[in-house]
Parts: sequence; structure tokens; C-alpha cells
Amino acid sequence: MSLVVVGSVAYDGVETPHGRVERMLGGSCTYVALAASYFTEVAIVAVVGEDFRQEDSGLLTGRGIDVAGLERVPGKTFFWSGVYSADMNDRTTLRTDLNVFADFNPKLPDHYRRQPYLFLGNIQPALQRSVRAQMDGVRVVGGDTMNYWIRETREELLETIKEWDFLLINDAEARQLSGHYNLRRAAAAVLEMGPRTLIVKRGEHGASLFRRDGHFAAPSYLLEELVDPTGAGDCFAGGFFGYLAERHLDLVDAHADPRELRRAVIYGSVMGSFCCEKFGVDRFRALTRAEIDGRFQEFRSFTEF
Amino acid sequence: MSLVVVGSVAYDGVETPHGRVERMLGGSCTYVALAASYFTEVAIVAVVGEDFRQEDSGLLTGRGIDVAGLERVPGKTFFWSGVYSADMNDRTTLRTDLNVFADFNPKLPDHYRRQPYLFLGNIQPALQRSVRAQMDGVRVVGGDTMNYWIRETREELLETIKEWDFLLINDAEARQLSGHYNLRRAAAAVLEMGPRTLIVKRGEHGASLFRRDGHFAAPSYLLEELVDPTGAGDCFAGGFFGYLAERHLDLVDAHADPRELRRAVIYGSVMGSFCCEKFGVDRFRALTRAEIDGRFQEFRSFTEF
Repeated sequence: MSLVVVGSVAYDGVETPHGRVERMLGGSCTYVALAASYFTEVAIVAVVGEDFRQEDSGLLTGRGIDVAGLERVPGKTFFWSGVYSADMNDRTTLRTDLNVFADFNPKLPDHYRRQPYLFLGNIQPALQRSVRAQMDGVRVVGGDTMNYWIRETREELLETIKEWDFLLINDAEARQLSGHYNLRRAAAAVLEMGPRTLIVKRGEHGASLFRRDGHFAAPSYLLEELVDPTGAGDCFAGGFFGYLAERHLDLVDAHADPRELRRAVIYGSVMGSFCCEKFGVDRFRALTRAEIDGRFQEFRSFTEF
Repeated sequence: MSLVVVGSVAYDGVETPHGRVERMLGGSCTYVALAASYFTEVAIVAVVGEDFRQEDSGLLTGRGIDVAGLERVPGKTFFWSGVYSADMNDRTTLRTDLNVFADFNPKLPDHYRRQPYLFLGNIQPALQRSVRAQMDGVRVVGGDTMNYWIRETREELLETIKEWDFLLINDAEARQLSGHYNLRRAAAAVLEMGPRTLIVKRGEHGASLFRRDGHFAAPSYLLEELVDPTGAGDCFAGGFFGYLAERHLDLVDAHADPRELRRAVIYGSVMGSFCCEKFGVDRFRALTRAEIDGRFQEFRSFTEF
């Protein structure tokens, strides 16, 4: 085992131009863990209710994911539903029932505490810090956040991310966090806040990695058919961090091989693109590592000049 | 001489978050020609009025541009003015006075007719065809169009572009022309219409090149300060086509070296990025080829993995 992932495990209801699913497995922790499981051993920390289905737990354990930290408590599992715009670049939330997630207070099983890699999914910054504090000798810590925490718990968030090796957010969040529209300036300002590395996810426009010594820009994969973008950003995170863990890499300036970090961004993009090909986590029921590596090579072929 | 460029030479009034200029040299032909002049000899075909300033003509001839086809007629030069949104991704047209451009009927000087490269800027498709017909043995023909012609003169436009070696449009135009939102499908549909190569400009999101045998995606250059995006797409065209002309390349499948076409896209991106650093054509008053090649190398350094 090597990568610990904390976040939400949820049920989602989703409508896109390709159809509608009333209830399917979702949540940031689920997507990150599934994507990372192609690269490294993964252990999750999350909470679900009594309605959590055996088959959904089975999908995770079937991919070798350690669910010792998946707490089951009385009540219902977190439920979110939303509908996407025609171009799928926007979505409207229809319902958010936090349910058992409202009282989520992550506690790491003993055998998680000495793992080298920790991903803090998009939860309250104070909880992200409490998880970080439970780890003993962690080598690389990174995570995600969202507009709500940037706006409502800014000071707490700044305290939290200043310890991180990487922060993974989208372009709107980078602008909101920094106060700069210009992405180069926004990135410089965010790096000043502490994180060694900033990865900006730009959806259909690709992803960029920023460090003090330079940046890297990757275009997105052009899908023939985008079915459901739910979870794509989390799968990016899983591919990115999973690859770092597989290669035993860290982000300390002296050790970081820039090419390896760039390849991690490409693997993130690859996993995000696969995620969009089917509803929810369905693509991961049959996806193989050979397909993943094949798409990585495709990225090379359409970016080299 | 080698590249003939047809289009508008105009005066523009522009307001961006960085300031306001009441009247400055502009027009698609101007920007394409200036950008291309760093790579190859250029000759322009356009019309101006009696108010066209000697110093503006001097900027063109100072860069070695042949202005034998720059007709001066009674009346005023085409004038356009607009104001950009805060993020400069949108602009509102305040005024469009076609003036002498309304009766533009391009006639090529004799010594233009046997040149190998022809760029047809964004004018009425019928005029683009009439210019094409005046050329004798042209090797590569490409051009631009816009939403107005796609909507109002669709059949005429389809007749026009089916002969072209390349079509250079933005993503919204590719979607409008093809009827597909998905860019991969949109590109496939446009290639079915005839052009051997489609280049899709995506502004701050980069550019993509599509051919039947594959595609190439380039991110944009992250500017520290974007002052005025006016003309950036035309400068992209000038850099792209200028590089093809410099290297004596064509786009016939059998001869085209995919890497060279990709490098042309990068040079296009480089020229578009320089254009945005100052108002109007100002950046070209001092820009050097060494700076251009330096930025090309920067593109390599932030895209390799």
C-alpha cells in the first residue's frame, strides 16, 4: 500500500445530453482512488450510510483498494444530483444531501498512518489538516479544494495549503484564490502561498503545472464522445498522484525530475479523459493499464513537434 | 517575393483594460503581412482611402512588404472600433464604417500572379475566389473566414474553401461551419468539405491542426501581460503561413512533413502572442527574429515531457 485518499464517497444523480442516471456511485474519494489504483496501492478514508451497496464496495476492493478506513454509520450516504449544459462545460446542482457526510470526522486506521503519499480531497480545510496531522512521516501531501472553501474559510485554507507539496485546482479557483485573472500571475501568487507545485485543471482546454522554476502545459485529449464529465477532475488527480507513487517520486525541489512531473500531468489527463467516456465510474469496470499507456503514447504523438 | 496576402487594411479604435487608442493601423491584411514578413517576402492586395497615412505605409515597406497591390482610392479607409471585456475573451463592436472597403474588388499586379503562396484574408468568399482565379500556378492557398460568411453565404463559402490547402478559423466558427460541438467531429466534417488541413485557433487555449492522418494540439503562450488581443488570430496566420513559405513547404499529403506543419503552428502561436503585448501593430515596430526564435524554443521547453 502507498497512497491514502480522503474525501467523499457518494451517490450521484446525473443528467447529460447523453442520458440520465438516477443514482450511481460517485464522490471525489471514489474517483481519485479508482484512477490511482492503476498505478499504486490505495487506501481510502471516507464515510457512508447504511444504504451503501455491497456491489459498490466490491468495485473498490476488486481494484485492490483498502477500505479499512471506509466507515459505515447509521443514516444515508451523501447524495448529489445535477444537470449538465448542452456543451457540458457547466452544470447546475439540483440537490445536495450531505447526510452522514455532514458529521464526517476522518480517523485513519493505524496501518494507514505510515504511508508515504496522502491525497486530501475536497473537504473542509480543518478536516484536511486533522488528517494530515494523523500521518507519521508522510512524504508527499497534496490536495484539492473548491470555490466554497476559498470564499468561506479562506484563512483556514491558507493555513492548510501552505504545508502541501501540491495543490490541484481548476482555473476559476486559481483566479479566485489569487485575485489575478492572468493565469501566469495567478499561479505565481498561489506558489507564494506555500505549495511547491500548482496544477491547474482546465477541462477541455488541458492542464498546466507551475513551479518556481517553470511551467508545463498539456492540451486535453479530444474525445470522440464525451458522455459524462462527472469525476474527471478527480480522476486527473488520481492519475497524477498515482503515477508519482508508482515511480516513488516526491516534489522536493532537489529530487524532482521535471519530466516525471510532466508525465504525471499527462497520466492525469489520460485518466480524466477515460472517466468522461461513460457515466460515473463505469469506464473503470473494464479499463486496462494497457489502454492507459496507449493513450499516454497518443498524447506524445499529438503534441510533439 | 513569395507570399501574397489579400484582406483589409484599416484603422481601428480599441479599448481594453490597459487603455484606449482612438485610431491605429489595423486590418487582417496588415497583421498577416507584418507577421509573415519575419519569414518570407510578402506582397499585399488591399484598398485604402485618401486618409491613409504615409507613416503607416512606411511601416509596411520598412518590413520589406510589397505594396504595389495596395490601391488608394477617393474616400476614407475602413474604420472599425470596439471595446474588450475585462478578461479580453469577448469584444463588442462599437462602429464599423466599411468606407472604401465596401467596393473592394481586388486586382493583382502582374508580378504577384506567379507567386507560390496565397493567403485569402477574411473577405466575401466570392472575392476570395476571384483572387484565386487571378493566380497562375499557385502552390499553396489558404485562408480565413468568419461567422457572417458562414451564415449568410454558406454555399458560396463551401465552393470557395473546397479548393483550399488550409482553412484557418476559430473554434466557434468550426462548430458553426460543421454543425458539431465536439471538436474532433467538427474537424472531421470540415475536412470532408475539401480543405486538406484545418487549423483551429482557440485564443488563450491554444491551437490545433487537423488532417486526415491525425491532429496536433499546441497550448498557448502564457503572457505576463495581455495588452490588446486585436489582430492575434491574423498574426497566427502570418506566422503559420510565413513559416511554410520560408521552408518552401506545401500541404500535399505526399510531401508534407508533419513535424514542419506542427512547427508552423508553433510559429503562428508565437506571432499571435507577441501581437498581444502592445496595442495594435506596435509590437512589430521593434520585434526581432531572434526574439521569435527564442519564444519558439520556449514553447518546446514548456511542452516536452
